[in-house]
Amino acid sequence: MTNFADELAARIAKCNNPTVMGLDPKLEYLPPELLEEWKGQAENKQMETGMALFDYNRQLIDAVYDIIPAIKPQFAYYEMYGIHGIAALRKTIQYAHDKGMLVIGDAKRNDIGSTATAYANAIIGETKIINDTTPEMFGCDAITVNGYLGIDGVKPFIDVAKEKGKGIFVLVRTSNPSAGDLQDLKLEDGRYVYEAMADKVEEWGKELIGESGISSLGAVVGATWPEQAKAVRERMPHAFVLVPGYGAQGGSGSDAVASFTSDGKGGIVNASRSLMCAWKKRTDLEPMEFKKATRDEAIRMRNDLQEALKSRK
Amino acid sequence: MTNFADELAARIAKCNNPTVMGLDPKLEYLPPELLEEWKGQAENKQMETGMALFDYNRQLIDAVYDIIPAIKPQFAYYEMYGIHGIAALRKTIQYAHDKGMLVIGDAKRNDIGSTATAYANAIIGETKIINDTTPEMFGCDAITVNGYLGIDGVKPFIDVAKEKGKGIFVLVRTSNPSAGDLQDLKLEDGRYVYEAMADKVEEWGKELIGESGISSLGAVVGATWPEQAKAVRERMPHAFVLVPGYGAQGGSGSDAVASFTSDGKGGIVNASRSLMCAWKKRTDLEPMEFKKATRDEAIRMRNDLQEALKSRK
Repeated sequence: MTNFADELAARIAKCNNPTVMGLDPKLEYLPPELLEEWKGQAENKQMETGMALFDYNRQLIDAVYDIIPAIKPQFAYYEMYGIHGIAALRKTIQYAHDKGMLVIGDAKRNDIGSTATAYANAIIGETKIINDTTPEMFGCDAITVNGYLGIDGVKPFIDVAKEKGKGIFVLVRTSNPSAGDLQDLKLEDGRYVYEAMADKVEEWGKELIGESGISSLGAVVGATWPEQAKAVRERMPHAFVLVPGYGAQGGSGSDAVASFTSDGKGGIVNASRSLMCAWKKRTDLEPMEFKKATRDEAIRMRNDLQEALKSRK
Repeated sequence: MTNFADELAARIAKCNNPTVMGLDPKLEYLPPELLEEWKGQAENKQMETGMALFDYNRQLIDAVYDIIPAIKPQFAYYEMYGIHGIAALRKTIQYAHDKGMLVIGDAKRNDIGSTATAYANAIIGETKIINDTTPEMFGCDAITVNGYLGIDGVKPFIDVAKEKGKGIFVLVRTSNPSAGDLQDLKLEDGRYVYEAMADKVEEWGKELIGESGISSLGAVVGATWPEQAKAVRERMPHAFVLVPGYGAQGGSGSDAVASFTSDGKGGIVNASRSLMCAWKKRTDLEPMEFKKATRDEAIRMRNDLQEALKSRK
């Protein structure tokens, strides 16, 4: 039986790079020449749009699959493009798997018991259809989850993760400016709301701890709040931490590794726009050399994180 | 310019029924004869599954569109059936609109600013595609949202709702047994977390108040917690309240109307399984008479809610 945390730790060690590439595509991110190539190639414009988005993702994966261990597609950007956007998401997941990458579905799903089960089945599990077969619909290796509904909104994800060797990342401290509106309210017992969520993560994650000592039930903790990151790491010593907010949102390398364990493990840092739109910052390259721009930025980021982990010791 | 809260209030008044039909389909809910009809009708089994699900939804809508003002499809159940499930969702939304019903997309989406915008565009807004047209992808009239990320996770939904006359329901107190894990933690200032969320809803909703005096930024407050429902209604006098948990989850008619305003308005009560699976409880009907079973249950529920509102005065 596989364990997601162990697999992710192994992939990170192999690449010597705790980066996950966020794939949050917008048409504006694509070089105009690439968009042009797809015009008139499908039976309708929505399908063309979806095909162009997948083509861009595919080439970005080609550019970095040997140096970045995982991708994190953000479901919103595919849903925004409707059915053909969602088809592009499915193809992207499949393609990343073909290239040996892990896939964290950034869906931030949440609901009560039976409905949470449906989301878990959709994204990391399988569903029985009309002929009693049980295909995987999205087939992600892990999913992000919002824990506001408490344990019976999270348990269904744990059950599927356990059965299928998958992973979960529960939102603890998000990277946005107003994260504190709710998350920083102070409780009667002295904890902040996000600390209470971190305590839940540690408690809920106990049954998914792998051989690496890290749990497949992890947490999302933004790079934009390094002080909070250190504090919550102490509350959840076993959680794999997914760190958004590096780069475009302002978090530095040393901010980003603040939630890693003391031996520099148990964390993975996301970058989306800085990798996807790297070509826009390169006056020395043509737009269609976007693969080189993304690979260069991936190497720069890897070195930045390695440096940050070293200087932390 | 339309205002969602006003439209919903008008539809409720016209039907004299504050019910929303939750459409959360599973193959197990369909009469075996209906499933049989769809076997071999499409090019593959996933497509057949999606077509059968839509057919069931369509017939349920036919059964009640003149007495129930709105539907609430729960996205999880369609995502669970993959691309063809999501296609069934889109067709269901379109069909309900054709029949004059409003559609509340129960998606519980949440994310940081730019990604929240993508979700808002997907579900209640529109997206620019390859030929610069801007189709609506799902075209719901309202969406449910999880506010754990604070105002900059909610503001993008407000912006789209304002521009397009759409609505938002923010989770305040959910109907599940462990809702209290996070929502009932007590804050230093004496409020509970769910009360703090209710205060945010009232504050955020100010700019979406319609002619009815009720805001298109509303709240989800479970029927299973009538005491909390009364307390949060006082904190958010302008919110439209969406009430899950009636029927199958144990909430009674009087529990369900606890969050309505004192004049019996500003609320809508969801029932999913009790309406969708009504035929399973009818020994006097054939399974293929499911439309009659659902209509009978819809009338019983309407009368129950009317009674509860009357006896409350």
